[in-house]
Amino acid sequence: MQQIRTDLAIESSGAFSDIPGVQINCWDESGISVTDVIIESDSAAESVGKAKGSYLTFECEGVRNRDPEARSAVSNLLGEEIFRLLPPDETNAPIMVVGLGNRMVTPDALGPRCVDKTLVTRHLIQEMPDSVDSRLQSVCAIAPGVLGVTGLETIETVCALVKEIKPRCVIAIDSLAARSSKRVGVSVQLSDTGIQPGSGVGNHRKALTEEALGVKVIAIGMPTVVYAATIARDALSLLTESAEDDSALDEITKALFENEIGEMIVTPREVDDMIDDAAEMIASGVNQALQSALSTSEIDGFKK
Amino acid sequence: MQQIRTDLAIESSGAFSDIPGVQINCWDESGISVTDVIIESDSAAESVGKAKGSYLTFECEGVRNRDPEARSAVSNLLGEEIFRLLPPDETNAPIMVVGLGNRMVTPDALGPRCVDKTLVTRHLIQEMPDSVDSRLQSVCAIAPGVLGVTGLETIETVCALVKEIKPRCVIAIDSLAARSSKRVGVSVQLSDTGIQPGSGVGNHRKALTEEALGVKVIAIGMPTVVYAATIARDALSLLTESAEDDSALDEITKALFENEIGEMIVTPREVDDMIDDAAEMIASGVNQALQSALSTSEIDGFKK
Amino acid sequence: MQQIRTDLAIESSGAFSDIPGVQINCWDESGISVTDVIIESDSAAESVGKAKGSYLTFECEGVRNRDPEARSAVSNLLGEEIFRLLPPDETNAPIMVVGLGNRMVTPDALGPRCVDKTLVTRHLIQEMPDSVDSRLQSVCAIAPGVLGVTGLETIETVCALVKEIKPRCVIAIDSLAARSSKRVGVSVQLSDTGIQPGSGVGNHRKALTEEALGVKVIAIGMPTVVYAATIARDALSLLTESAEDDSALDEITKALFENEIGEMIVTPREVDDMIDDAAEMIASGVNQALQSALSTSEIDGFKK
Amino acid sequence: MQQIRTDLAIESSGAFSDIPGVQINCWDESGISVTDVIIESDSAAESVGKAKGSYLTFECEGVRNRDPEARSAVSNLLGEEIFRLLPPDETNAPIMVVGLGNRMVTPDALGPRCVDKTLVTRHLIQEMPDSVDSRLQSVCAIAPGVLGVTGLETIETVCALVKEIKPRCVIAIDSLAARSSKRVGVSVQLSDTGIQPGSGVGNHRKALTEEALGVKVIAIGMPTVVYAATIARDALSLLTESAEDDSALDEITKALFENEIGEMIVTPREVDDMIDDAAEMIASGVNQALQSALSTSEIDGFKK
Repeated sequence: MQQIRTDLAIESSGAFSDIPGVQINCWDESGISVTDVIIESDSAAESVGKAKGSYLTFECEGVRNRDPEARSAVSNLLGEEIFRLLPPDETNAPIMVVGLGNRMVTPDALGPRCVDKTLVTRHLIQEMPDSVDSRLQSVCAIAPGVLGVTGLETIETVCALVKEIKPRCVIAIDSLAARSSKRVGVSVQLSDTGIQPGSGVGNHRKALTEEALGVKVIAIGMPTVVYAATIARDALSLLTESAEDDSALDEITKALFENEIGEMIVTPREVDDMIDDAAEMIASGVNQALQSALSTSEIDGFKK
Repeated sequence: MQQIRTDLAIESSGAFSDIPGVQINCWDESGISVTDVIIESDSAAESVGKAKGSYLTFECEGVRNRDPEARSAVSNLLGEEIFRLLPPDETNAPIMVVGLGNRMVTPDALGPRCVDKTLVTRHLIQEMPDSVDSRLQSVCAIAPGVLGVTGLETIETVCALVKEIKPRCVIAIDSLAARSSKRVGVSVQLSDTGIQPGSGVGNHRKALTEEALGVKVIAIGMPTVVYAATIARDALSLLTESAEDDSALDEITKALFENEIGEMIVTPREVDDMIDDAAEMIASGVNQALQSALSTSEIDGFKK
Repeated sequence: MQQIRTDLAIESSGAFSDIPGVQINCWDESGISVTDVIIESDSAAESVGKAKGSYLTFECEGVRNRDPEARSAVSNLLGEEIFRLLPPDETNAPIMVVGLGNRMVTPDALGPRCVDKTLVTRHLIQEMPDSVDSRLQSVCAIAPGVLGVTGLETIETVCALVKEIKPRCVIAIDSLAARSSKRVGVSVQLSDTGIQPGSGVGNHRKALTEEALGVKVIAIGMPTVVYAATIARDALSLLTESAEDDSALDEITKALFENEIGEMIVTPREVDDMIDDAAEMIASGVNQALQSALSTSEIDGFKK
Repeated sequence: MQQIRTDLAIESSGAFSDIPGVQINCWDESGISVTDVIIESDSAAESVGKAKGSYLTFECEGVRNRDPEARSAVSNLLGEEIFRLLPPDETNAPIMVVGLGNRMVTPDALGPRCVDKTLVTRHLIQEMPDSVDSRLQSVCAIAPGVLGVTGLETIETVCALVKEIKPRCVIAIDSLAARSSKRVGVSVQLSDTGIQPGSGVGNHRKALTEEALGVKVIAIGMPTVVYAATIARDALSLLTESAEDDSALDEITKALFENEIGEMIVTPREVDDMIDDAAEMIASGVNQALQSALSTSEIDGFKK
């Protein structure tokens, strides 16, 4: 299975639905198909290759077709579920939104673009606590950049900021890789487990987890690519229709793609539009969750 | 073969190297591997699925690794070969560079970006014929946009401009699709046949040919994507190692990718950088060919 | 007056409100202040420095403050007034939207950005006349680029396309220069006179008029800059409070700005946001006018 | 003097050249005019409105005309002077480059764009200390964003990172405001004083100084704008030619620009190109200083 890279629990759990310690529940809500994959034990985590915790996935056919109503529906439901995951606000500490990925590499720019669209309020509340709308939650947001551009591990930057700013929660947003191209630009995964090493389109390093940071880490991701090797491997797999054949397939896949496919990705031709749309949809959910006392039009009014 | 889309003659001719009417010559020059596919007869054109004419392909390992010297070498050789294709300058008529594709869709933006980097001189020569450097050739350049954005077929726009401006030659630059991912961002194809319907990443329509426009059309292209279906099809093909099996493979490929892969593309993650580099390399070759009396540093000096 | 560059009739007519042949009417509508400057005679045109015709200007304080409702109100009113100017649809000929200016120069990018947001339909109607919504008007749109980038006068490109496409009307959209910085990013000017030489932020050449093109030309513009020299000149002018002093002021202004201000412009620091907002507002008005049988949400549905 | 905003010591010291505690030295080097303003005492600092320290300004006519050789000459000299300011490398601690300003606001994007072009090496040296070129200095780089987008003061983010990364020096790069438009896009200021509150085009907050951060802060800036109010004020000032008149001028200026000019800026129309060029020139100087054991072509080779 190693060669099939996916960051979606819904996909990596697919082959293991009968494993003890993995619970999968599906339902429909507001026209959105929701799947909750709960990984309950360490042994289940190891089998699936995902940390223990809950992974909610939202999928909606209309999003693929750029239907504005479908996208609103996903934003709203995502907002509700993020809100449910937020730790109680006992300290007035801010929530820190972290946009992972490289803003200059389009398929990897989802996180930074969401940061651009997040309603930040921490500075307003700090500077004029008496005149600012008292319903506002304190929110800050940063896109720390990627290792190759900054020379800093994401975890170093986020860790430094968490120590300084002392947020009550981190919300990390990232571009993901899927196994199935039908999920690209469509599925949204929300989990309470943080971000694990090796996730994302590329080189984000080391875990952003509650263990590492000392505060809860909510992770939101959307697949923006499928690895090219995955596509080929799946094609071969289908042809042989045989689980035993795995090592032979591995050989062939390896031979096929060495030096050629490398880190090639599969993505829609309109990757620029896809990222714009996705950032809008996810940031809207985040804003609704974090400013839950405000209506969406009040939120829009706050953004310049 | 229909499902394997490629815009490179070097690839579509691969399976037909023993067909009468197709001549393939290969050589090395300045560290660049050059392949000349000459399609000599109508029947050969039909077999290969490319118009009659000559298709030169330049390939250089160093380009893949972003080696500046390799890129210069390709620019220089491309410039020489474009120059060889230019019709004689008997009329002082300008040369018109046409950048095909959609500037807002990164993998399809190669043509428009080359137009941005082309040294245009027609207005200088017209406005101050006496004070301008007499070695300058008259050049104009336009990116006509794509059908979905303009409502105009490319051929309509180019045809209208050719009637008005009366250039002695059109040079059309476009993003291509390859069959092999190792050619993406690397190979440059130069042909004297114009651009055929259905070429390019997407929706450029109808042929830009000497027949349609009344002036010679030189076509320059670089593959920026592989269609995802091609990757899967090739994987399957390799597994079966059997030419007879083609219809079965077609079935499976079709089943696999219906509704899923659609128009998904395979491209490097750093698609933005790839297009920037490619536009620089190709435009440099075009500028050297069109301003053959100037040195490259003189050309750079003219660009603001 | 020569040194005070403005492309707004409302500003150039300011000093001449008692000139015979210039009629100025003002009213309020939907919270928008509307001014109609009508230049009735050739002698009035010469005095004011604008072609004969009607220049409607829409101004709304809320637009400056990025109030979404104010921007909608302007879009709606602009749409109504454009619709009033459209020639009757006797021939089913398309309407051609032309976005003037340079897409790569932010303050000059308004026209091309409006083209990106225009709902184009001509290709749909041509390709599948029976299956397309019969209420759709045929619209095409192009951003022809600027002389320095293409080597082609805008009038050459537009003229060539008008001959080929035979639209019943051209709508030309351009970035303007204002005299007063309070109009930058706020005022929208709509006229039935086409675009005159020397208008716009920079180098658009030669008139786009019914006389030159053979079809009606509706011009829409928004000031995106004030020339720096204008600011200084106005400051001086106020200090002296003396109309007689004009030649002395001219001397001083000239001395002050020679070699220094040159073509410097005055613009908001957030020029990128301003252009985005303006393109959205104007394109929405254009789409409402051209697809007058559709609701705004139907128009949004058509855009991918 | 308050209304005349400038971030250049060379300009703010202009009126005070005979003040005790301000030393000004000028010379020419490689065709570049260099001015060193040294503010030696607290009282001088108060008069001039700049912190105690040395401010070198590099100016070169050729840079305004986009002459590649002039830009190289400035990069080289800037590199030498930055190198001279670097603290001795006793600890192998990295140098941290900080790009101030807002990447999405073109005139304010200089700092972030320089970060994109800085050769970062810290991760290479940490990950493979034995295989990496031993001449490489450890460099990291970050663009922390602006308060309105992140909700975080720049000083908070940088302070947090300095505590975590423990660099031996911070190099802060920022967009500046000039008094004279002839310096926009041309002059480069290098100082050993850090960045003071209120500097830059806009809202960067609170001092980035050795006092605040505990490590030396080298500041590099280039003016990208003049405030519109400055232009008008200077025009008035010239007209009256009278230093005594200052309060009257203040009144008039205030009246003139209230509600109108606000935060309008003066900048070249080609602001996008100006920022690209400036980032290239400054980052090249920074890279030469930080990787002083490498040739410029070796530096280019390291950048992907």
